Amino acid sequence: MISALEKAGILTEALPYIQSFAGKTIVIKYGGHAMIDPELEEMVLKDIILMKLVGMNPVIVHGGGPAINEWLDKINIQPKFVNGLRVTDSATMEVVEMVLAGKINKGIISRINSFGGKAIGLSGKDGRLIEANRKKATEDLGLVGEVIKINPEIIQTLTKEGYIPVVAPIGAGPNGETLNINADYVAGALGGALKAHKLVLLTDVEGIYLGDGPQTLVSRLSQREINQLIAEGIIKGGMIPKVESCLSALKKGVENVHIIDGRKPHSLLLEIFTNEGIGTMVVKE
Amino acid sequence: MISALEKAGILTEALPYIQSFAGKTIVIKYGGHAMIDPELEEMVLKDIILMKLVGMNPVIVHGGGPAINEWLDKINIQPKFVNGLRVTDSATMEVVEMVLAGKINKGIISRINSFGGKAIGLSGKDGRLIEANRKKATEDLGLVGEVIKINPEIIQTLTKEGYIPVVAPIGAGPNGETLNINADYVAGALGGALKAHKLVLLTDVEGIYLGDGPQTLVSRLSQREINQLIAEGIIKGGMIPKVESCLSALKKGVENVHIIDGRKPHSLLLEIFTNEGIGTMVVKE
Amino acid sequence: MISALEKAGILTEALPYIQSFAGKTIVIKYGGHAMIDPELEEMVLKDIILMKLVGMNPVIVHGGGPAINEWLDKINIQPKFVNGLRVTDSATMEVVEMVLAGKINKGIISRINSFGGKAIGLSGKDGRLIEANRKKATEDLGLVGEVIKINPEIIQTLTKEGYIPVVAPIGAGPNGETLNINADYVAGALGGALKAHKLVLLTDVEGIYLGDGPQTLVSRLSQREINQLIAEGIIKGGMIPKVESCLSALKKGVENVHIIDGRKPHSLLLEIFTNEGIGTMVVKE
Amino acid sequence: MISALEKAGILTEALPYIQSFAGKTIVIKYGGHAMIDPELEEMVLKDIILMKLVGMNPVIVHGGGPAINEWLDKINIQPKFVNGLRVTDSATMEVVEMVLAGKINKGIISRINSFGGKAIGLSGKDGRLIEANRKKATEDLGLVGEVIKINPEIIQTLTKEGYIPVVAPIGAGPNGETLNINADYVAGALGGALKAHKLVLLTDVEGIYLGDGPQTLVSRLSQREINQLIAEGIIKGGMIPKVESCLSALKKGVENVHIIDGRKPHSLLLEIFTNEGIGTMVVKE
Amino acid sequence: MISALEKAGILTEALPYIQSFAGKTIVIKYGGHAMIDPELEEMVLKDIILMKLVGMNPVIVHGGGPAINEWLDKINIQPKFVNGLRVTDSATMEVVEMVLAGKINKGIISRINSFGGKAIGLSGKDGRLIEANRKKATEDLGLVGEVIKINPEIIQTLTKEGYIPVVAPIGAGPNGETLNINADYVAGALGGALKAHKLVLLTDVEGIYLGDGPQTLVSRLSQREINQLIAEGIIKGGMIPKVESCLSALKKGVENVHIIDGRKPHSLLLEIFTNEGIGTMVVKE
Amino acid sequence: MISALEKAGILTEALPYIQSFAGKTIVIKYGGHAMIDPELEEMVLKDIILMKLVGMNPVIVHGGGPAINEWLDKINIQPKFVNGLRVTDSATMEVVEMVLAGKINKGIISRINSFGGKAIGLSGKDGRLIEANRKKATEDLGLVGEVIKINPEIIQTLTKEGYIPVVAPIGAGPNGETLNINADYVAGALGGALKAHKLVLLTDVEGIYLGDGPQTLVSRLSQREINQLIAEGIIKGGMIPKVESCLSALKKGVENVHIIDGRKPHSLLLEIFTNEGIGTMVVKE
Repeated sequence: MISALEKAGILTEALPYIQSFAGKTIVIKYGGHAMIDPELEEMVLKDIILMKLVGMNPVIVHGGGPAINEWLDKINIQPKFVNGLRVTDSATMEVVEMVLAGKINKGIISRINSFGGKAIGLSGKDGRLIEANRKKATEDLGLVGEVIKINPEIIQTLTKEGYIPVVAPIGAGPNGETLNINADYVAGALGGALKAHKLVLLTDVEGIYLGDGPQTLVSRLSQREINQLIAEGIIKGGMIPKVESCLSALKKGVENVHIIDGRKPHSLLLEIFTNEGIGTMVVKE
Repeated sequence: MISALEKAGILTEALPYIQSFAGKTIVIKYGGHAMIDPELEEMVLKDIILMKLVGMNPVIVHGGGPAINEWLDKINIQPKFVNGLRVTDSATMEVVEMVLAGKINKGIISRINSFGGKAIGLSGKDGRLIEANRKKATEDLGLVGEVIKINPEIIQTLTKEGYIPVVAPIGAGPNGETLNINADYVAGALGGALKAHKLVLLTDVEGIYLGDGPQTLVSRLSQREINQLIAEGIIKGGMIPKVESCLSALKKGVENVHIIDGRKPHSLLLEIFTNEGIGTMVVKE
Repeated sequence: MISALEKAGILTEALPYIQSFAGKTIVIKYGGHAMIDPELEEMVLKDIILMKLVGMNPVIVHGGGPAINEWLDKINIQPKFVNGLRVTDSATMEVVEMVLAGKINKGIISRINSFGGKAIGLSGKDGRLIEANRKKATEDLGLVGEVIKINPEIIQTLTKEGYIPVVAPIGAGPNGETLNINADYVAGALGGALKAHKLVLLTDVEGIYLGDGPQTLVSRLSQREINQLIAEGIIKGGMIPKVESCLSALKKGVENVHIIDGRKPHSLLLEIFTNEGIGTMVVKE
Repeated sequence: MISALEKAGILTEALPYIQSFAGKTIVIKYGGHAMIDPELEEMVLKDIILMKLVGMNPVIVHGGGPAINEWLDKINIQPKFVNGLRVTDSATMEVVEMVLAGKINKGIISRINSFGGKAIGLSGKDGRLIEANRKKATEDLGLVGEVIKINPEIIQTLTKEGYIPVVAPIGAGPNGETLNINADYVAGALGGALKAHKLVLLTDVEGIYLGDGPQTLVSRLSQREINQLIAEGIIKGGMIPKVESCLSALKKGVENVHIIDGRKPHSLLLEIFTNEGIGTMVVKE
Repeated sequence: MISALEKAGILTEALPYIQSFAGKTIVIKYGGHAMIDPELEEMVLKDIILMKLVGMNPVIVHGGGPAINEWLDKINIQPKFVNGLRVTDSATMEVVEMVLAGKINKGIISRINSFGGKAIGLSGKDGRLIEANRKKATEDLGLVGEVIKINPEIIQTLTKEGYIPVVAPIGAGPNGETLNINADYVAGALGGALKAHKLVLLTDVEGIYLGDGPQTLVSRLSQREINQLIAEGIIKGGMIPKVESCLSALKKGVENVHIIDGRKPHSLLLEIFTNEGIGTMVVKE
Repeated sequence: MISALEKAGILTEALPYIQSFAGKTIVIKYGGHAMIDPELEEMVLKDIILMKLVGMNPVIVHGGGPAINEWLDKINIQPKFVNGLRVTDSATMEVVEMVLAGKINKGIISRINSFGGKAIGLSGKDGRLIEANRKKATEDLGLVGEVIKINPEIIQTLTKEGYIPVVAPIGAGPNGETLNINADYVAGALGGALKAHKLVLLTDVEGIYLGDGPQTLVSRLSQREINQLIAEGIIKGGMIPKVESCLSALKKGVENVHIIDGRKPHSLLLEIFTNEGIGTMVVKE
């Protein structure tokens, strides 16, 4: 049992963190287990509401998770992936957009609102937030996009008015066509465009591993080291989009990037409000 | 062939209408044929962009149309209606929300943006725009809601920043549950909360008929007359939600309400920018 | 007969022009026939009110026309011109100022107001808008001035508050003396000081001719070409102040300059709202 | 010789007056001798600039003085008066407007500007400042107007931006026709519309006389007393428009009205900055 | 040992309290033991900084405590009290002001600033914050004042700019004389003038006792009950100024008043951020 | 006897000075005789209120004068000086702060307020206005500080809201300790941080002397000349802090610095409002 007094002490311990983050923008890529487990979800969203209340400007970018596959399955579309990217034909795109922008996005904002926050859901098409092109690849990926330009005005308007913006990773192509974009990349590009103080990727790993087991978790990596580790094939697979969006965010002006384990309760708050470094921090130098 | 000079003359003819509507809020219920036919849609959306550019504040509320039924059909859910209201179980609600907020809403804002406007899509859950309760009815309608309260701040924020808000008719219930609400009612309630100058319902009829054929179209009705016509059973069926949302909007402060024929090209612009009264105008007295 | 539907179509055709000119400053030199013929005047002023309503910032500079000569004649002063510039003694200057600032200027703003616009009349002495020096010339021109400095604050204040500023081409000399300045030059200098998007000169010619007849009208000229044509004596006479104020405006930052025919109805609106290039456009390169 | 120290003492003596008038609007009817004598004019205008600099909001309404008659004479129009009001046909009106708005008004603002102030000249037609009707009278007065409505927005805009507004007493009739209005009445109406703290009438008399000589000057009169004195024929002639505009200004919300002697140097500043009551103060009670 | 996770959980527990107090003004009377004990002081001031950071507007009013007596003692002035109020001659007043405004006040703001807050110290003389009169009493109390009027503009200015205002309980009399005012009364009057949500009195008692021991502590009292208890002599002595300033604050518009025990660590934060009611709450009804 | 008319003339003579100083910041070091003599004090403070009212932004930095010594004497502390700087142990510092921030500062603001101004007293600890370090010297000076950094935000906030800030020359050291700083240095540093137009030092000398008697007073000195005169030993003693703070202020961006004689009535106003140069002006070149 923690006494009321101990609780009060803990609140004032947060003081220096609150002071140092006041007015700073934090982009959070929200995905994986933390989006599926209702208890974890409640913790993440309350952590974010708290961040907003104490003066930070959190911006959420969410992924799609298993819901997309469930829905593709319901209408008998077979998901197909190339290098971790979903090959997206037009029927798939329709489902992806409905699930991301109509189901998951609205679910998140609705829960934030029910916990007392004020959230607005956006897709990259709203206010032309995300201008995209079809991703060039050796194999045709269909309606898979890459970010060309972020128009962050709508995010800034909402943030200034006290709202938490929640973004579905969808962009509009040059002819208005809907494009499916990797959420990690979107989070990195948004972080850059907003000159965010921090980009936090909530993942289903503890951070970046350099080998096979948890004991190879590395707590800090520089751009240079990452490039080398990719070249050496040590960083690979699903970790690639994550570290690439880290690097791209740093290049565009984000001050630092964190890959943390969303499966651990309150990992986000611990990252922000304590000195206990968790996961892997990626820095310029 | 219309000459350039004649065109210029027509532009200046619009002057008094532009002057008299400057800064006024116009809520447009967008649905029916005008939402399905791509040519009509382009005209309606361009008409609305023009209204915005010349200083009005248009707000769009859209319906769902056949897309909801198509999707219910894809996953083998049989639509069921009572008194024109869709009986909505939880599986149905999921589809309704995905189609309304993820497909139709994002499609509308995307097209507005591609025509050079600036639109943001909202559902009634965003920023707690629409607080709702389950609709009380003799038969259980499931997740069908009625508007309890509008929190119009997000609309006002977006409007002031130059955006056209586009609203999907979904509300959040007291326990955060998603509720399906008739778009006409939503439009009326929004018009009232925004103290709109005009509520325009784009429908698939020419206006309100008092009898069987077009020749019974009436161009002006007062609240009192409508109540009497409902009592006498002359106004009935699918016309009921429309006239009820008219009356409710008037009661909440909208200055006047128009039911016009969305099947006719540019009917919206003609209603706003000309003296040629079209459809039926519903007024207090 | 143009149908209501055709009219609506024409209104939406203007959309891209309205979008591209939103918030841009357009300086209009208003003079010649368009100032004398009441029907043309009504068209020009309504065109300008429309420009204001759809989000542009029009600024009018007017000339004096025959009214100055009529008044000089009434009190038996013989007008005298050197190289197209009025030799202005002090008695003449008094009449010029009274006619420009007291009669023509107030007439224009009054008519704009009666058409539903909001106009304020200024001379270059108001708020020290135009600081001038006596124009140096081989022959003594008396109280003829040339612009030394524009103080555009009052124009910006009025524009921001929704007014259309209407400027009489009079300046204040270093000792407070009133100076008569060519309206074309004033328009060019104002356009430059306001970083106007466009300077439009409403004239009594179709544009710049390179020879004797209408068939020598040229639709586009660069600075370099104009300088050469003046040197070759092809551009000459009353056309000189016009092209000089074009060049000076370009030099000071106006993006492009148009010489159009004010005798044609709605020539201003056609220039702004259509692709049908009319008159002569003068550009940097 | 006044020493520097005595001068400093005098400046600090003004402190309580400056404090008590900070942010207050003072309408000054400027006319008579103080407008003709260059030395007096310089003093009046510098007094007004000083008032502006120390935080008051002076607004000037000027009369026309002999210049109108001189110009009517130049073009052989015979001035004609009925009960002190100029009978104004259309040819006369043209001259009146040119002289008031084009010559006198621009002369005043030009001199204020040359003394370091920032002035803008307005007629009642600018920004629809003065809406008027033809004055009803037993004899037809032609284009003589009376104020129907003041639209003070332009005055407030200019005042807020640091300008001194200078108003020529001309109004626009319901059909846009130009109307000649007594400057005293205009000053009173403006004072009322601006909720002025003070209306000061600079006249060619020492104040209101109750008899034949200076010894009958009265320093304070209430509304009730004035009405009685008019009824008794003691206040009469050219004094009538002055006291009527006093009463009308009080009725519309001006706090107090002063009739002072513009022939005395710095009478305006002495009225504002000292306790030495000069002229006649008219008060509600 | 409390784990990081438990700490995070505690932070999110504060969420509903932070949400419900956002933007609310809380006036804190700071005195007694909590001002003398450095550890308690650090806790109180950090609690207040935290309140500010999470969006509340805390305003501190401090007492003088033993420091005044120590200084009077140093210069051999014998403190004298009547009914708990210090009899204040002019030599005493000089010491009181120096100690309150020069020593204690500056000490508090300096410590707040060193903990990362932004504080400004004020006495009631700054910006005429507290206008006072000499307190009327049967015995002459000398320079003891009572609040006549609060001019809260400076508090509002500082609050809006992110500062925590810290007020020394000194007022200016009608002739500019310095007056010593009971800090509890000042806190109540300030709370009223600021329409504070809460007034919290940090005291050296647990709350209001109705009898002799801690077991007579009462957790809630209404105005009516207090008046009766004073009349019955149950509330008496040093408790009188406290309950009187409670009643006066309620009368002036404070929503509720709390008397809490400043000797308990973090009692302020516990009062604000938990449901565990501590001390005595005084309410209207 | 000076007539009312002469008084008015003197007021308008101030016009060009008022115009040229509008919106400019003037830092005034207030000390010496002018702080002790009540008549001189009233003149200085009213001069400053007048400066504020006519649109300048005066900021006062005051010294301590004999009051500090009187109080040290009362508690039997012997003042000790090294090179004109008070050796400050912790008991002395406590007295210095109480006298400066609690007695003198509050006395000044109270008198300004009683003359109708609006003043707020600050020490360098309020809002972290003055960050200081212990002054390095050959002999240990104790708690004597030198300015490391000025955080001028609180001054700017107060100035913008119409207050006159009055600053006691006390700073906060890196560990929050209170430091005693020479008021001349503080005035210079503040002037620099505020990019003041003028720094005026009110002293008990007529200006800078180059020899032994008043006839060696110099009216203008450049930085270069001062450095040479210090090197030559001509400027020495108590004059050193004054000229050093002049040079430091110039270096930090103050436009010019004046050393004037505070013993002469209204010397401040004469310096600001007349051409009669008094004292010594120190300039860059």
